[in-house]
Amino acid sequence: MIPRYTPKDFAALWSPRRRYEVWLEVELSACEAMERAGLVPAGTALEIRGKGITIDPDRIDEIERVVKHDVIAFLTHVEEQVGAPARWLHRGMTSSDVLDSALAILLRDAIDAMMPRLERLLKALATRAREHMHTPMIGRSHGIHAEPITFGLALAGHHAELARGKARLEVARAEIAVGKIAGAVGTYAHLSPEIEADALGKLGLRAETVATQVVARDRHAAYFTALAVVAAGIERLATNVRHWQRTEVAEAEEAFTTGQKGSSAMPHKRNPILSENLCGLARMVRAAAIPALEDVALWHERDISHSSVERMIAPDATATLAFMLERSAGLVEGLVVYDQNLRKNLERTGGLFFSEGVLLELVAKGVARQEAYVWVQRNAMKAALHGENFLDALVADPDISAKLSDLEVRRCFDLTHVLRHVESMIERAVGELGG
Amino acid sequence: MIPRYTPKDFAALWSPRRRYEVWLEVELSACEAMERAGLVPAGTALEIRGKGITIDPDRIDEIERVVKHDVIAFLTHVEEQVGAPARWLHRGMTSSDVLDSALAILLRDAIDAMMPRLERLLKALATRAREHMHTPMIGRSHGIHAEPITFGLALAGHHAELARGKARLEVARAEIAVGKIAGAVGTYAHLSPEIEADALGKLGLRAETVATQVVARDRHAAYFTALAVVAAGIERLATNVRHWQRTEVAEAEEAFTTGQKGSSAMPHKRNPILSENLCGLARMVRAAAIPALEDVALWHERDISHSSVERMIAPDATATLAFMLERSAGLVEGLVVYDQNLRKNLERTGGLFFSEGVLLELVAKGVARQEAYVWVQRNAMKAALHGENFLDALVADPDISAKLSDLEVRRCFDLTHVLRHVESMIERAVGELGG
Amino acid sequence: MIPRYTPKDFAALWSPRRRYEVWLEVELSACEAMERAGLVPAGTALEIRGKGITIDPDRIDEIERVVKHDVIAFLTHVEEQVGAPARWLHRGMTSSDVLDSALAILLRDAIDAMMPRLERLLKALATRAREHMHTPMIGRSHGIHAEPITFGLALAGHHAELARGKARLEVARAEIAVGKIAGAVGTYAHLSPEIEADALGKLGLRAETVATQVVARDRHAAYFTALAVVAAGIERLATNVRHWQRTEVAEAEEAFTTGQKGSSAMPHKRNPILSENLCGLARMVRAAAIPALEDVALWHERDISHSSVERMIAPDATATLAFMLERSAGLVEGLVVYDQNLRKNLERTGGLFFSEGVLLELVAKGVARQEAYVWVQRNAMKAALHGENFLDALVADPDISAKLSDLEVRRCFDLTHVLRHVESMIERAVGELGG
Amino acid sequence: MIPRYTPKDFAALWSPRRRYEVWLEVELSACEAMERAGLVPAGTALEIRGKGITIDPDRIDEIERVVKHDVIAFLTHVEEQVGAPARWLHRGMTSSDVLDSALAILLRDAIDAMMPRLERLLKALATRAREHMHTPMIGRSHGIHAEPITFGLALAGHHAELARGKARLEVARAEIAVGKIAGAVGTYAHLSPEIEADALGKLGLRAETVATQVVARDRHAAYFTALAVVAAGIERLATNVRHWQRTEVAEAEEAFTTGQKGSSAMPHKRNPILSENLCGLARMVRAAAIPALEDVALWHERDISHSSVERMIAPDATATLAFMLERSAGLVEGLVVYDQNLRKNLERTGGLFFSEGVLLELVAKGVARQEAYVWVQRNAMKAALHGENFLDALVADPDISAKLSDLEVRRCFDLTHVLRHVESMIERAVGELGG
Repeated sequence: MIPRYTPKDFAALWSPRRRYEVWLEVELSACEAMERAGLVPAGTALEIRGKGITIDPDRIDEIERVVKHDVIAFLTHVEEQVGAPARWLHRGMTSSDVLDSALAILLRDAIDAMMPRLERLLKALATRAREHMHTPMIGRSHGIHAEPITFGLALAGHHAELARGKARLEVARAEIAVGKIAGAVGTYAHLSPEIEADALGKLGLRAETVATQVVARDRHAAYFTALAVVAAGIERLATNVRHWQRTEVAEAEEAFTTGQKGSSAMPHKRNPILSENLCGLARMVRAAAIPALEDVALWHERDISHSSVERMIAPDATATLAFMLERSAGLVEGLVVYDQNLRKNLERTGGLFFSEGVLLELVAKGVARQEAYVWVQRNAMKAALHGENFLDALVADPDISAKLSDLEVRRCFDLTHVLRHVESMIERAVGELGG
Repeated sequence: MIPRYTPKDFAALWSPRRRYEVWLEVELSACEAMERAGLVPAGTALEIRGKGITIDPDRIDEIERVVKHDVIAFLTHVEEQVGAPARWLHRGMTSSDVLDSALAILLRDAIDAMMPRLERLLKALATRAREHMHTPMIGRSHGIHAEPITFGLALAGHHAELARGKARLEVARAEIAVGKIAGAVGTYAHLSPEIEADALGKLGLRAETVATQVVARDRHAAYFTALAVVAAGIERLATNVRHWQRTEVAEAEEAFTTGQKGSSAMPHKRNPILSENLCGLARMVRAAAIPALEDVALWHERDISHSSVERMIAPDATATLAFMLERSAGLVEGLVVYDQNLRKNLERTGGLFFSEGVLLELVAKGVARQEAYVWVQRNAMKAALHGENFLDALVADPDISAKLSDLEVRRCFDLTHVLRHVESMIERAVGELGG
Repeated sequence: MIPRYTPKDFAALWSPRRRYEVWLEVELSACEAMERAGLVPAGTALEIRGKGITIDPDRIDEIERVVKHDVIAFLTHVEEQVGAPARWLHRGMTSSDVLDSALAILLRDAIDAMMPRLERLLKALATRAREHMHTPMIGRSHGIHAEPITFGLALAGHHAELARGKARLEVARAEIAVGKIAGAVGTYAHLSPEIEADALGKLGLRAETVATQVVARDRHAAYFTALAVVAAGIERLATNVRHWQRTEVAEAEEAFTTGQKGSSAMPHKRNPILSENLCGLARMVRAAAIPALEDVALWHERDISHSSVERMIAPDATATLAFMLERSAGLVEGLVVYDQNLRKNLERTGGLFFSEGVLLELVAKGVARQEAYVWVQRNAMKAALHGENFLDALVADPDISAKLSDLEVRRCFDLTHVLRHVESMIERAVGELGG
Repeated sequence: MIPRYTPKDFAALWSPRRRYEVWLEVELSACEAMERAGLVPAGTALEIRGKGITIDPDRIDEIERVVKHDVIAFLTHVEEQVGAPARWLHRGMTSSDVLDSALAILLRDAIDAMMPRLERLLKALATRAREHMHTPMIGRSHGIHAEPITFGLALAGHHAELARGKARLEVARAEIAVGKIAGAVGTYAHLSPEIEADALGKLGLRAETVATQVVARDRHAAYFTALAVVAAGIERLATNVRHWQRTEVAEAEEAFTTGQKGSSAMPHKRNPILSENLCGLARMVRAAAIPALEDVALWHERDISHSSVERMIAPDATATLAFMLERSAGLVEGLVVYDQNLRKNLERTGGLFFSEGVLLELVAKGVARQEAYVWVQRNAMKAALHGENFLDALVADPDISAKLSDLEVRRCFDLTHVLRHVESMIERAVGELGG
């Protein structure tokens, strides 16, 4: 989590202070549930809350350097301020009851903090998709001109993918919002399932079905792989922006702010650096998937190898994805679209992309598909390699003209016709029922 | 997909023959939908089906070596046998309409073929969990004895994790069962959304919201990461078996068949090789996640870089996971459990694991938690390092005896009490409403 | 290892037959060394060789199904044919002595089989680099036109990278050519370091410094990561070809064979499918790095979790990289370069790329760098956005003309000058001392 | 790079201040080389140095927020302090000349800072290996007792592996110590190879053979994969410590400091948390390998997608590995070895591990290997399953006693004999010529 790629709220979310605040909330919620269950004197939590604990991360660090145990250091710090009632905290619990329930809260909150950013991105994609619903554009497969689409349709495709991403984050949120107040090896030896359900419920969490010392790590693996899939969706969007912006294509461009400099050596350059950056960041979110998966197979009732991994990937992957969502939302909102260039590129191949229509007409007239393919391809090659007009070449081809009239060939060259379904496609992607 | 780790049905599922059969089904289903839409003469598909096409993968390969295009080779092969009506096949379609719809069918069918195996594994875990519901076992964190669990509880934890895995596969199935019959760049230039929905519906697929030339690859990335999470759950199970079987632990053991040899040099060895193998295979399923995620960001309306990746990981990862499910089901079914050793290990530390109960009693009597911790730990250390009887040491400790009577200390050493919630935990994991 | 991407020699290298042949060679080499050391009766190996063993992989499989141990099955198969003398084989050895020494041979041979392919690729790059040494091309950063290079220089850069790849494969070869004939836990309990050195030396291997039951797996991890780095170098080359071939750039193109069809729907398309395929395959070679690294931390003196991983990645990653080397060599050899388009693209920005020279001249005349940057940029923007002639705009700029004469500005627009070092750069990359 | 796992010198190495200091060194070294080449007035760098530049990272950030370009922000900051002579800095250079040369210095220095830690680890392993050269230990394969080794031999194996790791870091250092002062697209348009060689030589770097705008990223990929291999070697060591420390094995233990608490719930626990932590950290260093490999295929003469990746993995992976080296050195130095437990475990199987010797003697007497195997195994099973004394059982076996005298069987049970090569093995690993 480096400042450059960390939104402010994520810096706060993953700060030591916030972590200890959430630990305290978990301890107090558990204490209150135990009060209700009669295990702890009524009023204990209230008394502790009344003391107004000041979390001092530095002091906790200091204690940890001696006791070499983070939760014990934290509890000692609380006891220093609260005195006697603190002895009721953590009753029958193990460190992981606190750590894992707190991690669940933070990972859940991280998704909640991503959501408005993702919604902003989806809204931007929807708006721009509708704006350019009928802006024709050459579709490309293999980087080679294929058949026409519209710019709005391309954006609608990204909307659909990222709407699926939203659904994935929602699933991940539900799966991760699971804590544990079940003691050393998850057996409630000095607690009960009822206390756990009560304590976690107040924190907005559910209880792990069968915990070991920890909440099962398949949940975390599923969480981080879900982030990676969303990041890959942004990577695809950013990759396309990079293609659209390249000098020879010039169909769309990242907004360029006044004062911004593209290059220290070349004053004329305007580079798609936001998009390139998004591609790099997607690699980082993806990279978190593997250690998260490797964390699943903890030994017996747990080992602590997952801890260092999560200390790094939990802040890093969530903050990075949040940053990506924000950056890509701004990118789409500000994207400068060059209709003229879109049109120019579309027309570059002289209508070669209408060849399929001609092919189909020939087949409809009884020509075998492979033969029709050869007839059309030879004229396509004349156009592509020798600069002949494709339509003229087709009309002049004796095999073709034996099957199709001049008019029948010309009717195949109709852009509006081939794009007739685009509007409904965009609406099914970005509309009320979209995604 | 190497024979050693490929179940027979997966060898068939991913055979060239099956692939071509599914391609043919997609082409015919599309043809029939086009017939209903009036784009193709009624009865075409029926006529083609009537010709009894014999798929000859070698002949298709032969044609592909010339045309360097797999779908065209396939269509040529069909045309060789069917003649004229074949020209109506693939009308207005692009190769990916066939390839991606067929891949969706195969990946969906792969999950369907995994499911009975996963259910067998879940059933085995449930059965053995109930069988050993009350078989006490020392729980271990960090490989160190912690507090008691039961062997059944450990298995129930694996059941819960793999039941979540089942839910993940179901989500992945729904996401992957999506095809596309929408033409070169997904615009239905010569087709319609209605034809697509009709054709795909008959194949048990839904239509991609906004296709490019291909179905969006976030679906496949989500699919393969889901497999990786399930494989990691099996890895955890297998890792535990390996621990249980190690010589010094000897609590459970893989069934050993007559004739099997453990070592070419050491005749006495019985090694947990199935479990070790499962751990290795989990690495392979996990490894497929990264290229699947890298495949998402295809250029523009598609490039074909994903194709070679999928040719490898689709068969490999699905067959490997199916093999793992089957192997681990057999492993759990046949697992030999050594109750005596479980008991012996449990008693090895002379009840040190009851220390927490003593600690809690001291706190209940008003001792500060950290102080109580010190008192109990010094007696634990006497027992652990100097072989003293832990209970005797506690009773003899003047600080402790000033707070707790002999009887009060002895009452903390009650195994049945600390395991009182195990039955309900197991039932909530493996019962009707489990998972 | 699927046929589509497996060169014939790699299919043979990784066939069961070849594996057993190498096992036999290891056993016989060890036997001969033991004969020389007096542990085994002289002439045993010669007698066994004289029996003309016929390896029958199916028969070995059959035996393995009973004994569930591959090396024992193999030895039984040998004994079936050889009879009594076979009892001297494998004396004091453990299975891994055979398996790991054989794997070392196969992995070493795989590199040897890659080398001529890599050399062919390097030669092709060198030849084409020299051929296009002076073919000017616009250099691009961020996909945006930057300053001129030559097409040959770009290829020379790939040559330099892949020459480093060659050096990496050589290091990997040296590291992997290490076997072990040291018994169950590597202690030579019934053997000696001298016998091992003798036996392995004859096989072209060195002995592991300290073996456990197996050769240490950091060697294999280093091997597979080296393959991944080389594959990534090819991925960069293939990515560039894809960019060069895209319709709007059209600077170079994969050779297109007669009969080849670019698209089932669009007869005019010529797609960079070889390059896209290479990008996908690079992902697969890269994916092997992670499980290879995960294999390192085997438990104690070994567990067998690495085995299934290596059964898959050893053939897959080596065959795939060999295929990639061959395919990319052919790609470079046949690459069609369009000088005219290179020139046209170069001139597209009207010499904007000479702006840095102007900037430097201004600085040389005492203008502060940031000020000069502003002056040049405003004229660059006029040219880029409003189509003015860049040179004319610069000359007409009053700030600039106050510092530089018309001639001084014009002298900055000299392509030969900015490319004056290209020849020596290419030679240092591809010449005798290159790389 | 989180404080918990970041050594102080790595925090300094990767601080913004240090980065800017190195940038300044690169700029000044380039300036001096240009002075010597006559491109810049003599004495410029000296004059700039004389001004005593104070790097203020916050001020640079402030400027960057406007110009959105880090190197331009840095140069502006320098110019603010230095005034006119600053215009000579960066002459003919591009940002990446500074960034990549500086990154090379930092990555090289990171290895230099790792080396003493790695040497400390190697020394600790060598010392402890010799200390326990003759401490017998049961070797284990598959977690099952196999044949004897010594504790020193196990450590010597780790020494050998990490000595190879050291060699890998040295290779990585040589490969990464490569910079670039070659201008916008690496052509020396306004510079020369001589100036570059001069400037970089003073910084301890070599020049890239053929740079694009950047130094080629295969170097960085090789660097980070080398770190991952070393980390995997530490993971293996840490995994073994975890096994040795587990309650039932108890052969060795991490040093436990006074005041340290093993568990918040269980006062008696002493957990191998350093080793578990090392396993987790190894996952993180491994995870950096994939994005580093993905960075290689930059587009054309570069895109900037690698930058965000390197901003994260360069500090993270190097600091983490340095931390791991330090932690594992301390771990080995302080490792508490329990000779008694080693002996007890060794004797647990009643000499079953001598079975191979008996097997070999039988073969030497003419018994077929497979038959001898069966004879020995049945007695091994009696001992393993029914608690009989293995030696007695063997002697009493009629088949065996028909071939071997009582004495011949007893002679096979000699620990000193089977460990006779251990000393020379350890010396070849840790001695002068070791590794």
